[in-house]
Amino acid sequence: MSTRTGIPFLKGHGTENDFVILPDPENALELPPAVVAALCDRRSGLGADGLLHVVRSAAHPDAREMAGHAEWFMDYRNADGSLAEMCGNGVRVFAHYLRRAGLVTQNTLSIATRAGVRAVRFAADGAVTVGMGRVALPGGEVTVNVDGRQWPATHVDMGNPHAVAHVLDLAHAGDLRAAPSVRPTTTYPDGVNVEFVVDQGPRHVAMRVHERGSGETRSCGTGACAVAVSAARRDGVDPAVTGLPVSYTVDVPGGTLMITERPDGEIEMTGPAVIVAEGEIDPQALATGPHTGNVHR
Amino acid sequence: MSTRTGIPFLKGHGTENDFVILPDPENALELPPAVVAALCDRRSGLGADGLLHVVRSAAHPDAREMAGHAEWFMDYRNADGSLAEMCGNGVRVFAHYLRRAGLVTQNTLSIATRAGVRAVRFAADGAVTVGMGRVALPGGEVTVNVDGRQWPATHVDMGNPHAVAHVLDLAHAGDLRAAPSVRPTTTYPDGVNVEFVVDQGPRHVAMRVHERGSGETRSCGTGACAVAVSAARRDGVDPAVTGLPVSYTVDVPGGTLMITERPDGEIEMTGPAVIVAEGEIDPQALATGPHTGNVHR
Repeated sequence: MSTRTGIPFLKGHGTENDFVILPDPENALELPPAVVAALCDRRSGLGADGLLHVVRSAAHPDAREMAGHAEWFMDYRNADGSLAEMCGNGVRVFAHYLRRAGLVTQNTLSIATRAGVRAVRFAADGAVTVGMGRVALPGGEVTVNVDGRQWPATHVDMGNPHAVAHVLDLAHAGDLRAAPSVRPTTTYPDGVNVEFVVDQGPRHVAMRVHERGSGETRSCGTGACAVAVSAARRDGVDPAVTGLPVSYTVDVPGGTLMITERPDGEIEMTGPAVIVAEGEIDPQALATGPHTGNVHR
Repeated sequence: MSTRTGIPFLKGHGTENDFVILPDPENALELPPAVVAALCDRRSGLGADGLLHVVRSAAHPDAREMAGHAEWFMDYRNADGSLAEMCGNGVRVFAHYLRRAGLVTQNTLSIATRAGVRAVRFAADGAVTVGMGRVALPGGEVTVNVDGRQWPATHVDMGNPHAVAHVLDLAHAGDLRAAPSVRPTTTYPDGVNVEFVVDQGPRHVAMRVHERGSGETRSCGTGACAVAVSAARRDGVDPAVTGLPVSYTVDVPGGTLMITERPDGEIEMTGPAVIVAEGEIDPQALATGPHTGNVHR
């Protein structure tokens, strides 16, 4: 590969939700789904849960109107090449990249996503805090079923749907190779992310998650938020009533997140962001067909 | 990461058997199992089936006595950090790297491995041919069983043990999440790699493989060799009798290999080798404990 044609990349993760990062300020790369899928393929590509395409908001049609509020747009793609609105773990890694590259120098910034502008704050220890939006608890009785066991679950809406089941042992969720059955099915017409939670200590829980479309994952940002809110209510804590924020430590399989719920219902997630490596991709190695021979526009 | 501390790496694959390549001519890197496992972790590291540590034979105690025959030693590590003797797909990628880096310029070379010196030849189309050693057919009746189906199998020894079952449909092997049952168990005291084969055309077969210790994989070099030899015998072809080499095209899930059996029992494997990307690893990102904070000696 020559430096003339190599495509700069970085590889990183947030609580083991991992990403290929493609810095492309002027939106010069062509990234059809087949190219994204080839990049994210874990054996023939670089391998990742998703791709963080780093573009100036002013240079991308999906973000242009946010450019006045957020200089940078997280053009997030799923590993199969489809578009995604948001990814909380991804925002942390995205922000960490911007700071590491010297593209932002302040301790707070706003990042444009397809779900709107997100506020980000850097802590001294390298952790990154991301505004995850407002939580809603639509109510209604929901049950989660695995291997003949059944638990009542909390219906939590974080922009995407969740069913949170408090269990005695995370092993009771089984191998999670299949999606747990959630009833009534009418509550979740578009499918649901299912979380299983156990207590670890005061305001400290551990969880596993089955993400719709992905299966069990090492971490799910919105899932951790849903779990923290469900645990708070179970503990009789509601910031809207007390007027005080409440924080829960949530252990996910890939690490630890801190979730804070504010009295106005806004949720903040704090967690690590790691860049493992950086370099250049050989575009020829990713050629998968006539449409993928050249990712340069 | 600064260029001062970054560790140069490449990522590549051969028929989707993928590797992190660490060029380290003078054997200056310290690579305890925990560091190798961290590098090969598919979410918190770079991700790979294994690691190709590229060292001059004269600089490595395991290869020093081969230095007169092979300048370069493939110090191969499994993804869990354990040592491995050989990896046929790995040798192709290793050789491709050496040529791409300008470390070899001729069309043939010898590479030292823990299983001895291997001959390599480059073809004009970028394919790489590797000497895989001598095949043995110990004989004896073996059966492979999956989901109530049962097939007679060929016991093939490629330095490691194989049971090759010719089937009507590769789907009959099931999901291969568990190792197929092979009987009698006394034939394979150390476990066995199990291959399922179907015909695709004259001297052309397709296979799936369950590797002992790894589960189903996208490609297995010695497995493809075992399959080609088993198919040849079933077709009534034996190079030792005819005095002529015979070649089979073997489709594996990750691509296509060409296997040639010579009259003296030596097997050659020809297949693709791809380098996807190159760059530098941040050693701090891989720190997993007190022993892994610094991979520089």
